[in-house]
Amino acid sequence: MNTQTIKPYVIGLDLGGTNSVFGIVDANGEIKATTAIKTLGFDSAEAYVAAAVTAMQPIIEEVGGIDTIKAMGIGAPNGNYYRGTIEYAPNLPWAHNGIVPLADMFSEALGIPVALTNDANAAAIGEMTYGVARGMKNFIMITLGTGVGSGIVIDGKLVYGSDGFAGELGHVIMRTENGRSCGCGRSGCLEAYCSATGVARTARELLATTDRPSLLREMNADDITSLDVSIAAGKGDELALEIYKFTGNLLGEACANFAAFSSPEAFVFFGGLTKAGDLIMDPIREGFKKHVLPLYRDKAQFLVSGLDGSSAAVLGASAVGWEIQK
Amino acid sequence: MNTQTIKPYVIGLDLGGTNSVFGIVDANGEIKATTAIKTLGFDSAEAYVAAAVTAMQPIIEEVGGIDTIKAMGIGAPNGNYYRGTIEYAPNLPWAHNGIVPLADMFSEALGIPVALTNDANAAAIGEMTYGVARGMKNFIMITLGTGVGSGIVIDGKLVYGSDGFAGELGHVIMRTENGRSCGCGRSGCLEAYCSATGVARTARELLATTDRPSLLREMNADDITSLDVSIAAGKGDELALEIYKFTGNLLGEACANFAAFSSPEAFVFFGGLTKAGDLIMDPIREGFKKHVLPLYRDKAQFLVSGLDGSSAAVLGASAVGWEIQK
Repeated sequence: MNTQTIKPYVIGLDLGGTNSVFGIVDANGEIKATTAIKTLGFDSAEAYVAAAVTAMQPIIEEVGGIDTIKAMGIGAPNGNYYRGTIEYAPNLPWAHNGIVPLADMFSEALGIPVALTNDANAAAIGEMTYGVARGMKNFIMITLGTGVGSGIVIDGKLVYGSDGFAGELGHVIMRTENGRSCGCGRSGCLEAYCSATGVARTARELLATTDRPSLLREMNADDITSLDVSIAAGKGDELALEIYKFTGNLLGEACANFAAFSSPEAFVFFGGLTKAGDLIMDPIREGFKKHVLPLYRDKAQFLVSGLDGSSAAVLGASAVGWEIQK
Repeated sequence: MNTQTIKPYVIGLDLGGTNSVFGIVDANGEIKATTAIKTLGFDSAEAYVAAAVTAMQPIIEEVGGIDTIKAMGIGAPNGNYYRGTIEYAPNLPWAHNGIVPLADMFSEALGIPVALTNDANAAAIGEMTYGVARGMKNFIMITLGTGVGSGIVIDGKLVYGSDGFAGELGHVIMRTENGRSCGCGRSGCLEAYCSATGVARTARELLATTDRPSLLREMNADDITSLDVSIAAGKGDELALEIYKFTGNLLGEACANFAAFSSPEAFVFFGGLTKAGDLIMDPIREGFKKHVLPLYRDKAQFLVSGLDGSSAAVLGASAVGWEIQK
């Protein structure tokens, strides 16, 4: 008798710098069960995987056991899709000093196929599978968080390049003279301006170099975060709005250069900064329009991710699992 | 009786701003017969196609008639692969003001399939088919001529983007402050510095802003061309070498940003400037090394086109013809 087990689920793992969130997801993008562990606090990758597998057991049982699960997808910082590895991830103590074959380790522990990619690539695949980029063949995902990440889709496929590390648009250099120093060791990167820390830095610079009134002056400058800028902007604070304008214009200028590369039909933005809605999206559109080659003008849409922030990363990771051809 | 005619050849058309060169090419990249007409001097696209077909008759007969020819490929400025059109080409009087369906027109006139792409894309396909990029899946072709063009290959396929116009890397903005004006109407584009006219302009700027001795001072500054710079550099002229250093460094800096997009295994350069060999290639490598994200360091090769300049464009165009799936 030839029975084929139905496998309606995949596991998505959003491996972040602080938390690791696991979700069991069906083909419609519905998260059926979820759990989490802290990412840090392990001496080795082996200890991390063991703790993860233990934490997953109850939710795996909840959906009917491991035989109902087709595959696992992982979105992780410094993830390499070709090799299924995390490589020299500066913020992961158990992976910052070498190459961890995390996909193989989970595959062995669970007995299912496992694929891994970096977090921004996972977000792009998630958006294409479940979000606003459904049906699109050419778009660029830009994630605005602690850093600025990107996932580039061309002809319906994620761009991995020759080494699996393509698509680090946060580290395109936007200012060659007097550029801000960036965490990568260089200066003038997009990330140095448009990440959460970049936005806070813009706030401090504007407060220090002008005497314009602002709600942000009530705080200790060193304590200002991008969330504070967002709250002030929500109250109509002019300086905070100016910060969004500066940040959005620069993102739009960057997108103008990206258009000359792959001429996408859309740029999709994800992350805390997008909660500001048109306060950030309008300056992005303006910056693009001002800087783009006429050939590409009015061709690309500027969209905000259609996925709920808390589940988007897990859905993106799960979509990487669905993509495994087995 | 079911005989299938053997079709060992394709026609390649290098449609340039001055001359249109036709070559009949076999699968090994050998040009069996060639002819040419002037590109300009026609009132309409119809008149151009009619003259082209007339000019091609003798070489088509020479190789055994139209039944020996599988397809035709065209490389043309402002060519759109998806539509087989030339669109608003500023330097072609019979195509500068609209959309010319040139592929369909040639297909109808000759009775064979015809594909068309822009000239730099054709060069990239030619390099992948016959040149130094054989076997490569991820590389970026950069053509240094009157303008700076590019053809981007990812995963073995040319990048056309959502509209067929992807890959205009000559118009990535390299200098946001006090950038040189560019023919596209904006400022600071790579092309404004690294095209043949850009190199001549660098020469004039260096002559005007310094009093360094140079063979170039013997000329009227307005008459200096990139060829004069090349000749002076060949004689060891220090100022001319400085011009190559400036130009190469900027190209390398641009490539560092391109690496963050598609992480190619090679950058392949084509055009007059590459005749300077290491005088230009070494500064390109230096500029790249200085500006690239450490993740991509030492991964990409910097190569000069392996195709003979006079036939490369025809071979590239013919390779577009071979790609037609019929």
